[in-house]
Amino acid sequence: MRWSRKDLLDLQSLSPEEITAILDTAREFKAVGGRAIKKVPPLRGRTVVNLFVEPSTRTRISFELAAVRLSADVINFTAEASSLKKGETLKDTAKNLQALRADFIIIRHSAAGAPHFLARVLDAHVVNAGDGAHEHPTQGLLDVFTMREHKGRIAGLKVTILGDILYSRVARSNIWALQKLGAEVTLCGPPTLVPPIFREMGCRVTANLDDAVADADVVNLLRIQHERQRQTMFPSLGEYTSLFGITRDRLKKMKPDVLIMHPGPINRGVEVESDVADGVHSVILEQVTNGLAVRMAALYLINGAHGGTPEEN
Amino acid sequence: MRWSRKDLLDLQSLSPEEITAILDTAREFKAVGGRAIKKVPPLRGRTVVNLFVEPSTRTRISFELAAVRLSADVINFTAEASSLKKGETLKDTAKNLQALRADFIIIRHSAAGAPHFLARVLDAHVVNAGDGAHEHPTQGLLDVFTMREHKGRIAGLKVTILGDILYSRVARSNIWALQKLGAEVTLCGPPTLVPPIFREMGCRVTANLDDAVADADVVNLLRIQHERQRQTMFPSLGEYTSLFGITRDRLKKMKPDVLIMHPGPINRGVEVESDVADGVHSVILEQVTNGLAVRMAALYLINGAHGGTPEEN
Amino acid sequence: MRWSRKDLLDLQSLSPEEITAILDTAREFKAVGGRAIKKVPPLRGRTVVNLFVEPSTRTRISFELAAVRLSADVINFTAEASSLKKGETLKDTAKNLQALRADFIIIRHSAAGAPHFLARVLDAHVVNAGDGAHEHPTQGLLDVFTMREHKGRIAGLKVTILGDILYSRVARSNIWALQKLGAEVTLCGPPTLVPPIFREMGCRVTANLDDAVADADVVNLLRIQHERQRQTMFPSLGEYTSLFGITRDRLKKMKPDVLIMHPGPINRGVEVESDVADGVHSVILEQVTNGLAVRMAALYLINGAHGGTPEEN
Repeated sequence: MRWSRKDLLDLQSLSPEEITAILDTAREFKAVGGRAIKKVPPLRGRTVVNLFVEPSTRTRISFELAAVRLSADVINFTAEASSLKKGETLKDTAKNLQALRADFIIIRHSAAGAPHFLARVLDAHVVNAGDGAHEHPTQGLLDVFTMREHKGRIAGLKVTILGDILYSRVARSNIWALQKLGAEVTLCGPPTLVPPIFREMGCRVTANLDDAVADADVVNLLRIQHERQRQTMFPSLGEYTSLFGITRDRLKKMKPDVLIMHPGPINRGVEVESDVADGVHSVILEQVTNGLAVRMAALYLINGAHGGTPEEN
Repeated sequence: MRWSRKDLLDLQSLSPEEITAILDTAREFKAVGGRAIKKVPPLRGRTVVNLFVEPSTRTRISFELAAVRLSADVINFTAEASSLKKGETLKDTAKNLQALRADFIIIRHSAAGAPHFLARVLDAHVVNAGDGAHEHPTQGLLDVFTMREHKGRIAGLKVTILGDILYSRVARSNIWALQKLGAEVTLCGPPTLVPPIFREMGCRVTANLDDAVADADVVNLLRIQHERQRQTMFPSLGEYTSLFGITRDRLKKMKPDVLIMHPGPINRGVEVESDVADGVHSVILEQVTNGLAVRMAALYLINGAHGGTPEEN
Repeated sequence: MRWSRKDLLDLQSLSPEEITAILDTAREFKAVGGRAIKKVPPLRGRTVVNLFVEPSTRTRISFELAAVRLSADVINFTAEASSLKKGETLKDTAKNLQALRADFIIIRHSAAGAPHFLARVLDAHVVNAGDGAHEHPTQGLLDVFTMREHKGRIAGLKVTILGDILYSRVARSNIWALQKLGAEVTLCGPPTLVPPIFREMGCRVTANLDDAVADADVVNLLRIQHERQRQTMFPSLGEYTSLFGITRDRLKKMKPDVLIMHPGPINRGVEVESDVADGVHSVILEQVTNGLAVRMAALYLINGAHGGTPEEN
């Protein structure tokens, strides 16, 4: 297929073919990371702005390296010291960045929908690097990429997402991508964090961990987001761990080839025991490596589509 | 003319020919921003340090992109985490940066004259990115560039600068450039912010807005600088807006081809109504685009002049 | 000799030949800084991460420029906004950076031994940019490089290190390098800061300044590290200066060709009088220039050794 979208905003609106196109392109780019000279020329002379209104060193660096390895020039723009603090609106900040001929705006923002808003008002390409509890499309893509690389397919795969579903943009992006590609998704966690409404998205919902992981091909653990929860949704971390933490004992009851995934940063001893996080089932660090490949693919594909600074249209 | 200055410190000391040389060079560089590959080689292998002792994301990014698009390597040095905090003097910090073979020091500092001081003690090229309430020469140049691009000339142009003149380095740099190139400058604002002393600079001074803008070819609105004023110089923002804010109604009383300018970031609803800021008379975003071109021109010209690290002299 | 170490962690474990190899390589790279195009290609396409868990703008910039001038891509990672703040372990942070295919991790950390720990768990090259009060090997190397450049040799040189020895990683790295290359090291300062235990490292220890500097070829002044001392180890800055500060009068009693060195940033009027810091004996700014050359040499040499991302082994 030929890619035609100017932006990468969410996975909900992508077709299975579009998702597959990114995954296939990412496979090509993954090889670049293994070379001594980790650089290819497609974005040479292009300007990429990392507009991180909500801070995230990890994701920012992954996007920065993805852009740099495509030979783009990268500007980091964090909200702390910016005009946004002086009362400028997000739209004005973004319009200013575009007036500097930014070709790509990679935005992380605490408000769901902020990237979609920018995509409408800007000619520049917009990439959503996480918007509130809405979506984190490149995380969803790297998770699916990693599953496909290990299992050879997504269709028919049984994937259990575990933990703080309610507040998780990672969960939402995973659910969209997995269902579009034909996986069966189970959500599991404390009922306060996994409300029954998710059944309407076509997922199985359960608070019974044993049930949720028994026949799973993949168990994707979400990070307990202390910083994003306004009220305590479960009694204590200790209780969470005793009910939902993945331990060696629990791992033994899973399929012998189950994949353990986590978007990071992991809370060792909370969502997952160290032995499991570092064990043979864990692909947590591969996810990081694949994230870079997926982000290179996304920038590469949308660069080829309609968009860019006005003069180029 | 042949450019011979090592530094760009202010517009007061430049000749009309020198100002025109920068504007003409900027016109060439503006085209680079419209290309897919926004990069030209003149500063390849040169080191540019952004020494921002007073923070400004917007101006820092504009200079960073200007240097990067000339193929220079850029180091960002902000005061927050620096040796300046450990009690090192500005001179020692700058001498250290030069010892690292920085070719250009772009400095923003709250003390008027700081760039001139550095220019005297350093062999490196120094560019003033704003010093206290003194000058902001590249802002003055980009404003004049934008006016010339739209009006075809500066000589004879009637330009009104509106607002917080007393504390504004933008106003001072504008006044110097405009007068050198033959424009007629009117200053308008609350008498506390536009003292009669400015008449000695050859400007018309008035507190009557209708009077100030009636026959203006350009109205340049200054930002109300909450952060730089130590005492309240006018009763309230609301009163400022009602007396001096540019509304649609006020715009109707101006010339049909008046240009509305603002150095940004704008306070929507304070200095200017949103409809006016986004309307056909506004060239606010063009100013941002032109700022990059002017900064590329300044770096390019002083690079060709005497200066640089000692070994090269 | 052929360099074979994957990492640069300390000077204690290096042989005299290894230290000399870095110094000789640095001499070649010093010339690059004097050129208009300050760039050579050996690290093109390599990724260098500045992992500064303890902040240091000065050292970070020196490493950043060293990497950039070798044509590497550099990512700055400071602890402030990072996952380390979210409870991630240093090992996990470093493993994640390696999963992004970082080839080099340059680490500054307040815990002695942190770089050695990373070097064991990572395939990436690790460079110690200062670990607690343990070592700061590139500072030791640049100091020795500067002495050798001026004196033609290190063997037989009398070097006095003055000040806060107890808390100084700079002193430790200097002592190791100087003794391995055959210099005679004298330590001098208030007894609380220069305990007799240092005699076991083979140094002369004295609290008598006149005695310590009378026949010194080099006097290396350490910075009084207010920020790293938990208790006041001497009565006052004024008393320290009157007993140990290097003044013009004290300089007159030293050898006529004595070198005055300081790792910076200097406290003018505390460790050293301004006239001395800026005088003909001072090589303080040359140290900064040489630091860049030494860091380029270190990155260049370990790049040629075993190591790097797994795929390349």
